[in-house]
Amino acid sequence: MGYSIGMRVTRRRHFIEFGDCDPAGIVYFPRYLEWFDAALQNHFREVGFSKAMIVERYGFVAFPMVDLKVTYSVPSTYHEEVVIETEVLEMRRSSFVTRHRLLRTDEKRGQVVAVEATETRVWAVRHPEDEQRFQGAPIPDEIRRAVAG
Amino acid sequence: MGYSIGMRVTRRRHFIEFGDCDPAGIVYFPRYLEWFDAALQNHFREVGFSKAMIVERYGFVAFPMVDLKVTYSVPSTYHEEVVIETEVLEMRRSSFVTRHRLLRTDEKRGQVVAVEATETRVWAVRHPEDEQRFQGAPIPDEIRRAVAG
Amino acid sequence: MGYSIGMRVTRRRHFIEFGDCDPAGIVYFPRYLEWFDAALQNHFREVGFSKAMIVERYGFVAFPMVDLKVTYSVPSTYHEEVVIETEVLEMRRSSFVTRHRLLRTDEKRGQVVAVEATETRVWAVRHPEDEQRFQGAPIPDEIRRAVAG
Amino acid sequence: MGYSIGMRVTRRRHFIEFGDCDPAGIVYFPRYLEWFDAALQNHFREVGFSKAMIVERYGFVAFPMVDLKVTYSVPSTYHEEVVIETEVLEMRRSSFVTRHRLLRTDEKRGQVVAVEATETRVWAVRHPEDEQRFQGAPIPDEIRRAVAG
Repeated sequence: MGYSIGMRVTRRRHFIEFGDCDPAGIVYFPRYLEWFDAALQNHFREVGFSKAMIVERYGFVAFPMVDLKVTYSVPSTYHEEVVIETEVLEMRRSSFVTRHRLLRTDEKRGQVVAVEATETRVWAVRHPEDEQRFQGAPIPDEIRRAVAG
Repeated sequence: MGYSIGMRVTRRRHFIEFGDCDPAGIVYFPRYLEWFDAALQNHFREVGFSKAMIVERYGFVAFPMVDLKVTYSVPSTYHEEVVIETEVLEMRRSSFVTRHRLLRTDEKRGQVVAVEATETRVWAVRHPEDEQRFQGAPIPDEIRRAVAG
Repeated sequence: MGYSIGMRVTRRRHFIEFGDCDPAGIVYFPRYLEWFDAALQNHFREVGFSKAMIVERYGFVAFPMVDLKVTYSVPSTYHEEVVIETEVLEMRRSSFVTRHRLLRTDEKRGQVVAVEATETRVWAVRHPEDEQRFQGAPIPDEIRRAVAG
Repeated sequence: MGYSIGMRVTRRRHFIEFGDCDPAGIVYFPRYLEWFDAALQNHFREVGFSKAMIVERYGFVAFPMVDLKVTYSVPSTYHEEVVIETEVLEMRRSSFVTRHRLLRTDEKRGQVVAVEATETRVWAVRHPEDEQRFQGAPIPDEIRRAVAG
């Protein structure tokens, strides 16, 4: 029903801004998920599928979240630069599983996985009869191949 | 090492705004977690612990997230009113487990659990020697009792 | 080319959440603009034009911002309840001017206008030949009348 | 009471993400202000004043907004790369005026100023008797010189 891939990992530096942090002085926890979402779209671009190319070939495609697990191990604060690693762990017929790791480095601990998320998302296209709605569709083979490397 | 509670459920109406939604026209998925965070703080107020009271008794307390699981079953869009139900499932020594359910009603499906999240959070107070840092602390008994009902 | 109205004022209570605040402990300034945006959409609903009704009559309509002026006089923090007052000051052919005032009450100062914004926005509909684009359109008369009261 | 400077301009590439856009498919207008806020902090770093250095010398300093004017001329959408230019136009005793320009390039129009903002902000330090509050303070001379170039 699915097979492991996980061969292509994309890495992206990310600078944490003041406005991402809360009154406790640390990153407000939902912000990490926004960054991981951006990292996933970056992952598609890196393997050759820009938004323009996807829209041209398949129309507007969204990746709605179905299931999300996040482990927060170490807090970060603003004006730190971290690294986000993203890979697709598994591709199913019309959904896929992604893992993101936010790596943080400080003098005391060295580099650690500060936050890790596993996401299951659907490959969703516009409903043929109602452009306001989306529905899952089979993931195109060329997307599978690109992501799998 | 912890015991089940889950007796007090707070409910809160929530109106979804245009700015919460993404180009697919549905709620951008991290927004739900912001609402659940607000719902948790509302839960504390509802059982008698306002921010002012907490600060007066324990100083600045934060609830950093440790572990988060979310299931997204049904999308919502803007200008819908939904209900968020929040309860504390378990209280451990210095952490606690919370569950949030976002209930959505439409004509076709009736009322359904559209999004459900289970969170593990720490009761964190300022570090005694470094006001920029936080550390876990035992959850005060009166908080336990209030939450447990 | 426009005429003053400003007769209908809608008021809305707004509760400030922890996640709206920054490491200085006060509301992160762009958040106010999100609330004012929501207040404007609320204003349309209050005068009889829900999203559903607007979509049914005119299709998808957006109100892109053209010009924005904001004065921040008094900071607010989380777990405060404030009031947002919204009115349409002027309606032009295909744009309109809105004013929002955020009223904050504390023991020392009483009720003050903590933040005030004046916005110029366009009444924008989908481009007839490119559904990805929008263009200004004359504001329908019934909208003018409803807003003007 | 203040003098014009505006000599140092910092430029920063910015990539627009899906989650920054609204159901009309364009950047949700408050997001620009978050980016400009980040660009200002970047400006301080670029002229030699990192957060760490500022905290070490002056303690926690915030730049609360007092007055904001924004002109939105051209919309942008996700997966576009834009450029943000930032300069300090004027330094007063304990406040300063900043200008940000977001430059967007497309085939049809070439490079245009899509959004421009002028901000007045206060140099604010912790209140000596209440660490929860801030107050304006004279801008240190070395900061003036660094920003003025």
